Amino acid sequence: MQTTISQIPQLVGQEVELKGWCYNFRSSGKIFFLQFRDGSGSVQVVYSKAELPEDQWKILEGMRLESSVIVRGIVKEDSRSPLGFELEGKLIQAIQIAPEGYPIGKKEHGPEFLLDNRHLWLRAQSQWAVMRVRDRVITSTYEWFHENGFVKFDTPILTPTACEGTTELFEMEYFSEQGTGNSEQGLGNREQGTGMGEGTKAYLAQSGQLYLEAGIMSLGRAFDFGPVFRAEKSKTRRHLTEFWMMDAEAAFVEHAENMVIQEALICRIVADVLKHCRYELKVLERDVTPLEKIKAPFVHLTHAEAIAKLRAGGSDIGDTDDLGADDETALTTQYDRPIFIEKYPAVVKAFYMKRDPVDPTRVLNNDLLAPEGYGEIIGGSQREDDYETLLARIQERGLDPRPFEWYLDLRRWGTVPHSGFGYGLERIVGWLCGLHHVRETIPFPRMVNRITP
Amino acid sequence: MQTTISQIPQLVGQEVELKGWCYNFRSSGKIFFLQFRDGSGSVQVVYSKAELPEDQWKILEGMRLESSVIVRGIVKEDSRSPLGFELEGKLIQAIQIAPEGYPIGKKEHGPEFLLDNRHLWLRAQSQWAVMRVRDRVITSTYEWFHENGFVKFDTPILTPTACEGTTELFEMEYFSEQGTGNSEQGLGNREQGTGMGEGTKAYLAQSGQLYLEAGIMSLGRAFDFGPVFRAEKSKTRRHLTEFWMMDAEAAFVEHAENMVIQEALICRIVADVLKHCRYELKVLERDVTPLEKIKAPFVHLTHAEAIAKLRAGGSDIGDTDDLGADDETALTTQYDRPIFIEKYPAVVKAFYMKRDPVDPTRVLNNDLLAPEGYGEIIGGSQREDDYETLLARIQERGLDPRPFEWYLDLRRWGTVPHSGFGYGLERIVGWLCGLHHVRETIPFPRMVNRITP
Repeated sequence: MQTTISQIPQLVGQEVELKGWCYNFRSSGKIFFLQFRDGSGSVQVVYSKAELPEDQWKILEGMRLESSVIVRGIVKEDSRSPLGFELEGKLIQAIQIAPEGYPIGKKEHGPEFLLDNRHLWLRAQSQWAVMRVRDRVITSTYEWFHENGFVKFDTPILTPTACEGTTELFEMEYFSEQGTGNSEQGLGNREQGTGMGEGTKAYLAQSGQLYLEAGIMSLGRAFDFGPVFRAEKSKTRRHLTEFWMMDAEAAFVEHAENMVIQEALICRIVADVLKHCRYELKVLERDVTPLEKIKAPFVHLTHAEAIAKLRAGGSDIGDTDDLGADDETALTTQYDRPIFIEKYPAVVKAFYMKRDPVDPTRVLNNDLLAPEGYGEIIGGSQREDDYETLLARIQERGLDPRPFEWYLDLRRWGTVPHSGFGYGLERIVGWLCGLHHVRETIPFPRMVNRITP
Repeated sequence: MQTTISQIPQLVGQEVELKGWCYNFRSSGKIFFLQFRDGSGSVQVVYSKAELPEDQWKILEGMRLESSVIVRGIVKEDSRSPLGFELEGKLIQAIQIAPEGYPIGKKEHGPEFLLDNRHLWLRAQSQWAVMRVRDRVITSTYEWFHENGFVKFDTPILTPTACEGTTELFEMEYFSEQGTGNSEQGLGNREQGTGMGEGTKAYLAQSGQLYLEAGIMSLGRAFDFGPVFRAEKSKTRRHLTEFWMMDAEAAFVEHAENMVIQEALICRIVADVLKHCRYELKVLERDVTPLEKIKAPFVHLTHAEAIAKLRAGGSDIGDTDDLGADDETALTTQYDRPIFIEKYPAVVKAFYMKRDPVDPTRVLNNDLLAPEGYGEIIGGSQREDDYETLLARIQERGLDPRPFEWYLDLRRWGTVPHSGFGYGLERIVGWLCGLHHVRETIPFPRMVNRITP
């Protein structure tokens, strides 16, 4: 296997050959400084005209941004470089000298220009660092769940019914002209309106939670991690139309333990990013001091307490209002740890959340707000596990119970108390990287006005 | 945290409390055998009427399939049980005694009935085992890639253009009535036909490969693992309309090394499943002997050699024909290791595959066929890395080069030799579990005639 920059701290004093790209350079006429990256990291290669064959010096003189090259050099410790090492250049070889005019330079570009060139912008050091942090968040999530008995359970994207209204769902035809009917062995009229036939509609899933609840009745604990879709026209710095969501669900876990799980997961992710992505956070100029304070126990506020605090701060928010982005920001600036906001009014939350037995106007749910103004990164709740109560909730909301028959079945056959939560990957990455807008946290962002490249 | 069945081998002689479900039972009138599962595994709990309080014995007498229960008992070694342990029952407590008539019983059900009840069928021991093997394949894939310098890179599902024709793509409207135009700082006419405006179409991705190639020019090595979509009307045992695909791509890797990577990954997955899923494979009655033979080196045949072998076996397959499912089956039965079929005729393969310099009518690609008749599980190739050649290939196929501008850019700015491959998760799980049809390998399968539950 190819030697990479990530290995050179173990190779001090040795000559190494690396393959990659020139992302910057400067020359004094006698000394040439090549800023070299290979995907695993970046390092400066210093060439001396006096010590390099003439044809190779000519290659350096003709160097251009983003040319692909092979370099050879001796690894030296260098305390001035961000990596702590540089190469004393011994050989330069061109794979391809790029044309002049690489579109992304040192000058400030507007976000639309950068997003139009997302396929190239990804090569920038900052974007490289964000993608590596994203990978670390994903990896830590998988590790933590597997260490804690959760099984990955991939829920479907193509779903037959728009359970809670279609306004924020992407809709499509599902084999409209096909000749196959529904199963003759099917479940009779429970499939009405969702069975296959001419003009069958499919919707892109917004969350896998309901399916995940079926999964845990087999597997005990399960998590789901994949793309979800929201046809929301909001153009805010926190919204994408396609984003990655992690949903987790556990049988026999109730409200309090549900939050313990969330806290442990977030602590693990933050600790791992601080441990494994120091260099990436440095590239991003992320102040790590606030991240180092992310430790259990997190702050707990009830929704009622949060409302009282907001009002004390001058807000006119109502008793049964949901929290808006500004409210979240106001709360997070008062603490240096994440905040659980618990027990929202039932009227502003989903039908499947279990009511608080102490106050049935409220549900056993929580949001989790990240500090420094980042706001909501997790939403979770204990789920209603009683058949009759759940059916009544569906009907109260004016929803058709038929497409929920299978979901109600989970309460009919061996119901158990259970809870779950979901995090938005891009919001967590944005927080950890200290980014203003989530659009930089995903390889190819999709927004109301963007579906390219 | 709750004690689970997975922990009881370490708890012999101790009394444990477990929460879960009754999946079967029988009674002699004096001894009650409760088949108990909790998501982490299953175990028999043996109750004696003489030793149990009367009210608890009554619970057992009223037991029904899929009731949720709490059991307490002493862990005993028992060589007759598949797990090697059973519980001497000390307590039974009902969470919910299920109604009579649980739909899935011991009798044979047709596949459509089982799929209509997928949310319950998932609880069957066989389906539990398949989901656990699936999780193990996913986990080993993540581990192997991370140990080998690959970064997870999530490519988009919503894509603007149907690069190679729309016949097998799901199509939808993307914010048809929105008022926002395309960026004024955009790239001019390269966005024509894909820019945002009234009636903008989006297509669900069939593969993330092209985007992944952009990713490796930043990250060096990357992999993508998510759902992909194929609006194919084929109703075969190998096809789903929504399935999970793993794509990997690596800079500076050429054709031969590309296959070394595939071989190492598959060997790792098989070894891990054999190591961690022995019990699951036993539940599935999977003969592990063929799996134990999966070791490097795999068999290598060129496409020409494969055609010759098929003809020797009586086939009338042509020199430039692609291999069909029957051809694959015929070849795999001749070897007990997976087979790489290399260097297909260029005319039957995608435009982006690099030609073989020795014979430019062929490409530097490979399929990988699993033994025992399972056939194709991987497709891969070295990619064309020359700008002019790639542009010519696009034009030869009659494709519009404009939506490929960004993809061509990867060859304009520091092109490098690179290769990649993709595996279909459901086909790998189907092979390892010894299943006839891929529909059992995913939680909620989507097929031409099925989008429920």
